[in-house]
Amino acid sequence: MNYEEIELRREQKFQGKIISVDVETVKLPNGQEATREVVRHNGAVSCLAVQNNKALFVKQWREPAKAISVEIPAGKLDSKVEEPLAAIQRELNEETGYQADNWQKIYEFYTSVGFSDEKMSFYYCDSLQKLTHKRSLDEDEFLSVQWLSLKEAEALIENGDITDLKTIMAINYWKTLQVS
Amino acid sequence: MNYEEIELRREQKFQGKIISVDVETVKLPNGQEATREVVRHNGAVSCLAVQNNKALFVKQWREPAKAISVEIPAGKLDSKVEEPLAAIQRELNEETGYQADNWQKIYEFYTSVGFSDEKMSFYYCDSLQKLTHKRSLDEDEFLSVQWLSLKEAEALIENGDITDLKTIMAINYWKTLQVS
Repeated sequence: MNYEEIELRREQKFQGKIISVDVETVKLPNGQEATREVVRHNGAVSCLAVQNNKALFVKQWREPAKAISVEIPAGKLDSKVEEPLAAIQRELNEETGYQADNWQKIYEFYTSVGFSDEKMSFYYCDSLQKLTHKRSLDEDEFLSVQWLSLKEAEALIENGDITDLKTIMAINYWKTLQVS
Repeated sequence: MNYEEIELRREQKFQGKIISVDVETVKLPNGQEATREVVRHNGAVSCLAVQNNKALFVKQWREPAKAISVEIPAGKLDSKVEEPLAAIQRELNEETGYQADNWQKIYEFYTSVGFSDEKMSFYYCDSLQKLTHKRSLDEDEFLSVQWLSLKEAEALIENGDITDLKTIMAINYWKTLQVS
């Protein structure tokens, strides 16, 4: 069976600082035409940073959810060509004030593939060291850092403080490490 | 510490069939103003549907990734008020031709909370039965169904056929069930 959709044309509907939006007209496998709304994004990075059976989490306001959200350290690529490992090392430094000596790339995934091309690289890291000179946050960023055990992180999913998919995935991934 | 951003005004930049986009001007915790690009979405549902140590997956074209993607059954809410359980039961029927007798809500999360308000309810279900009369797919939907064991699903993450975050989360969640 053929599933492929062929892009016939593309019209840009919005160009912002973080995202842009196109409406594509595509040819379906049955020859009919349809439209697809696509949010374009430079891509992103995130990490599970572990030390002494605790991991680093950051707490910040998320305007789309209009709520405070507890998440693993993460950030956007500065450009389509920024190297993801360099980006997550920068973000871990900026957001938490830590650096890690041991990095392992675990997954590369689309966060919401139905309507967005945002692709995220997810890393595991350990051998953490507190930096004496951390990088500054972006000027519109306000967050605080917390160390959580697996049990504490699971409790924050349960009580609704953690509602972020990448963070829930990371906590489940962390749990699979404990038992193997 | 106060993290809250106060929405001062909102301007709609795009209104599509699936998403709309607003630019919000917010007041930051330090009193400064900033803008936030927010993709609005009705919300979505997904499920891990298990029988005899295999789970149901669907294979379809994803235009944002310009690739075929293997994912757990999922879909959009028809409206902001549709009941998520009814929605996932409909989607499981349409996409796979199965119904399930046992449903458990596992998580509710934002798929990409940095720029989108898409909230997804994720279910586990089992006691599956093949329907004699399945609902039709949407007319622009083309997909096929496959049963995968946990090991097979993990192999598809490894080889890049599974690149969808909710599906990677579900596979890790499934793995935590096996061992507890």
